[in-house]
Amino acid sequence: MDFLSDFLTLFLAKLQSPTLGFLIGGMVVAALNSQLQIPDAIYKFIVFMLLLKVGLSGGIAIRNANLAEMLLPAVFAVATGILIVFIGRYTLGNLPKVKTVDAIATAGLFGAVSGSTLAAGITVLETEDIFFEPWAAALYPFMDIPALVTAIVLASIYTSKQKSLSQQEPFGKQESLSKQSVAAGGYPTTRQEYRSQQRITAGGYPRKQNDRVKIWPIVKESLQGSALSALLLGLALGILTRPESVYESFFNPLFRGLLSILMLIMGMEATARIGELRKVGQWYALYALVGPLLHGFIAFGFGMIAHHATGFSPGGVVLLAVIAASSSDISGPPTLRAGIPSANPSAYIGSSTAVGTPVALALGIPLFIGLAQVLMGS
Amino acid sequence: MDFLSDFLTLFLAKLQSPTLGFLIGGMVVAALNSQLQIPDAIYKFIVFMLLLKVGLSGGIAIRNANLAEMLLPAVFAVATGILIVFIGRYTLGNLPKVKTVDAIATAGLFGAVSGSTLAAGITVLETEDIFFEPWAAALYPFMDIPALVTAIVLASIYTSKQKSLSQQEPFGKQESLSKQSVAAGGYPTTRQEYRSQQRITAGGYPRKQNDRVKIWPIVKESLQGSALSALLLGLALGILTRPESVYESFFNPLFRGLLSILMLIMGMEATARIGELRKVGQWYALYALVGPLLHGFIAFGFGMIAHHATGFSPGGVVLLAVIAASSSDISGPPTLRAGIPSANPSAYIGSSTAVGTPVALALGIPLFIGLAQVLMGS
Amino acid sequence: MDFLSDFLTLFLAKLQSPTLGFLIGGMVVAALNSQLQIPDAIYKFIVFMLLLKVGLSGGIAIRNANLAEMLLPAVFAVATGILIVFIGRYTLGNLPKVKTVDAIATAGLFGAVSGSTLAAGITVLETEDIFFEPWAAALYPFMDIPALVTAIVLASIYTSKQKSLSQQEPFGKQESLSKQSVAAGGYPTTRQEYRSQQRITAGGYPRKQNDRVKIWPIVKESLQGSALSALLLGLALGILTRPESVYESFFNPLFRGLLSILMLIMGMEATARIGELRKVGQWYALYALVGPLLHGFIAFGFGMIAHHATGFSPGGVVLLAVIAASSSDISGPPTLRAGIPSANPSAYIGSSTAVGTPVALALGIPLFIGLAQVLMGS
Repeated sequence: MDFLSDFLTLFLAKLQSPTLGFLIGGMVVAALNSQLQIPDAIYKFIVFMLLLKVGLSGGIAIRNANLAEMLLPAVFAVATGILIVFIGRYTLGNLPKVKTVDAIATAGLFGAVSGSTLAAGITVLETEDIFFEPWAAALYPFMDIPALVTAIVLASIYTSKQKSLSQQEPFGKQESLSKQSVAAGGYPTTRQEYRSQQRITAGGYPRKQNDRVKIWPIVKESLQGSALSALLLGLALGILTRPESVYESFFNPLFRGLLSILMLIMGMEATARIGELRKVGQWYALYALVGPLLHGFIAFGFGMIAHHATGFSPGGVVLLAVIAASSSDISGPPTLRAGIPSANPSAYIGSSTAVGTPVALALGIPLFIGLAQVLMGS
Repeated sequence: MDFLSDFLTLFLAKLQSPTLGFLIGGMVVAALNSQLQIPDAIYKFIVFMLLLKVGLSGGIAIRNANLAEMLLPAVFAVATGILIVFIGRYTLGNLPKVKTVDAIATAGLFGAVSGSTLAAGITVLETEDIFFEPWAAALYPFMDIPALVTAIVLASIYTSKQKSLSQQEPFGKQESLSKQSVAAGGYPTTRQEYRSQQRITAGGYPRKQNDRVKIWPIVKESLQGSALSALLLGLALGILTRPESVYESFFNPLFRGLLSILMLIMGMEATARIGELRKVGQWYALYALVGPLLHGFIAFGFGMIAHHATGFSPGGVVLLAVIAASSSDISGPPTLRAGIPSANPSAYIGSSTAVGTPVALALGIPLFIGLAQVLMGS
Repeated sequence: MDFLSDFLTLFLAKLQSPTLGFLIGGMVVAALNSQLQIPDAIYKFIVFMLLLKVGLSGGIAIRNANLAEMLLPAVFAVATGILIVFIGRYTLGNLPKVKTVDAIATAGLFGAVSGSTLAAGITVLETEDIFFEPWAAALYPFMDIPALVTAIVLASIYTSKQKSLSQQEPFGKQESLSKQSVAAGGYPTTRQEYRSQQRITAGGYPRKQNDRVKIWPIVKESLQGSALSALLLGLALGILTRPESVYESFFNPLFRGLLSILMLIMGMEATARIGELRKVGQWYALYALVGPLLHGFIAFGFGMIAHHATGFSPGGVVLLAVIAASSSDISGPPTLRAGIPSANPSAYIGSSTAVGTPVALALGIPLFIGLAQVLMGS
């Protein structure tokens, strides 16, 4: 009972958080037919700022980490991040009436990491005097960024395949697809559209073979898209230069504020698409309830291997599981918004913020600590 | 004599304040034919940021206030705010050659509240050991926001009536009106223009009846306009969510800087319209001299009623009068700029910053304290 | 040897500085064909913010300085700033295959002042207990701003002459000039282009006379351009008003961050033009090696005159020389980018950041201190 009331308290507090507040505010504003609009140039710049910041913070964390010692856990973090996206794409994505791009974006967000959930996990470990490697927190970009990149690339491949499919079966399916015709991988540009067109019309091979040929250019295009470019640029600058001063004085302080405005924009847009979710809301709720625990167990398993192979501490294993259980309320949404523009933000943000994060905090953290104590006697 | 020199010192210091400095800077830049321009997307975003901040700070103040105890003073604050705008519209607005929209905007600014004048009032009360309810400062949004909303709605109604009038008397007046054809209530949009057009051409009733029919749609359109939407969105977010973190780290620190840039833009624009004021400057000076004291007395009277009815403290009555006497140098201008685009900023900002605020500070505060001591023996 | 290793350490640290890091990041992003773009409205606003800040800080420094006492050194600072640009224009600018606008921009940057080099000079003087007038640091805007203005005006005059020349010799040269047809003095506007056109076609006089006629309108147009307007507006506001609060809370904290984004944009653009530099890179390296020391000696000579005429302290003479030796890594680039849009940023920023600044720091400062001790026995 205590447990349930904890969960409900967390859930209600989340509804009052600025992030969700601005999202709902945007939805209400749009529903009331307000003429309020954020200029497009501002929207693009905000997304750029947020992605650069996410990349920079990841890069700085990696540069300051002990790479040799953390190699195996880092590889496991990358694997977990990618795995989570594939799991989501082939479970949630195959449920009736769930749109595949929405499922991929949601899985990307659950693969990405929440800094505040991670901080909560660290706090609990410290309170209970459980040792963990100081670099364990720096594992987060190794899961966060691969998950987001995987989601964007998967969505690109899916969208591209669908286009090719609708090309080959010109009648019947075309109409239902037109809604998600915006290509993934960046703000759509004429140049990109033109290329996709070329690739498709150049076909003539049987479809199976055609698909294989296409994957690498799509990955490349995703990486060249404005979203991943900004993210990877930030990552490279964080690793190779010393941007701490400008990060601390500029990108980090502006982050929460710019994010709140992006949430407003996403809310305004979500109103127009809320109908899409009515029939499938229960699937997202189910995914957001089960996902964090499942992802945590997978990472916990990987962590156990590292524990036996290289002496990764039980506390570190718990943190790896918490990182996997967490879903990104903050750094993920702007990346997915820019990288998978055709996905419905109310699907992925709603699932993560309203259900996924409370589950990870209230259920995940105590569960993994208990498990570590039972299995490794920490 | 001491009094006059205090007033002049305040007046000169105000001319050096960044707010007025950037306004004058913009006027000079434009007068020198500079090609300096602030992109339109930036202008719109700055206005949005400022209005959201004004709304948020009001909302946070209301949420943290003791609503039951402050009910009567709050109602009086709302009444005073609305009254001030109507008084200005039917006194200043009817003086010869004064443009009605300029008068309404000026009255809106004198109805709105200056945080720094309020802070000065609080400081004087504390120095003189006069008790006041801690929530009295939270009365400011109850006067500020109704005054601004009333001004924008009144301007919308007036502009709309004028359009309808010029429709019915198609020759003669049309030309003189074309200058203020920009509709109030938000950045003009094709959609809004189209609607106004429809409403007007649908006429055929006698004008009196026609006017009554129109008022509610205009109020609704004003509230849906980008200016009031942002303001009310901020208010709602401030009351219903907990945006303190993002307010303190983002909206509040950026406020003064963004305001200075808005002042620059308004100054650049004012140069083109400074001629309009030459013939009527004396009326604005008179209004700005008398207005603050008159508004303060009205609020003082309301405060006395609350004093006898519910025991509202004499110090609280003084603060209510100071709130009414103050005119908004900071939060009001962006709202009016966006909400009444056809009004001349040099009219209302000049009146408020150069005359109204020094009068409220140097004359108003000591006057209301003396009055309270005489009438209520505080 | 110790000396060379100091120099190399500084050189490598500079490559990791955020300023250069973002520049190189932008170059790499563009080289990889990324679709990343910063909206034009944002670019213009960032440039405006940076120039206003540079002007404001100069103005505030001048207002707080003791103008009577610093008159002669200030006049010498102005003279040195202008001289440096002319020297660069007629040495570097006449070297084979070096583009004249690139040389003028580079000379402008070497005439402008680096705050961090100045700070390093002050620190060394304080460490060695050498006295200098407290207002000596406030000499920097007297050299910085005249140098930038001179560079922009010289570039305008040069571009204008070239146009007129190509008008008179319509065949042969026209093609090679089309690349640098963007007029200096501000973001090109139709109105300006139109005027230049008019001025040119109105010709018919012999060219020599024609040139004289043109210079004043070009100076005026440069000053009215968006770049110098913003710079001089900031200067005037800094001197005449009290913008310290908004400077400290807004313009100054945002400066480094906005600069890093401008660097990114300039890097993205530089990629397309890097080829231009291949054949002339050695001339820029030579200029950047010799320039700082030569400029320092000129200012040192002027300082000696002030020392004998008005008792300017030896420490002050050293600081004047350090100001002249420094080249602007931070405040100069945005001004030149906006004021001389046809110049290649990789030429001037590369020269200044990668060679000029390390030379001034590692060679200049100890040299001038030693010289002062020998010549004036400080």
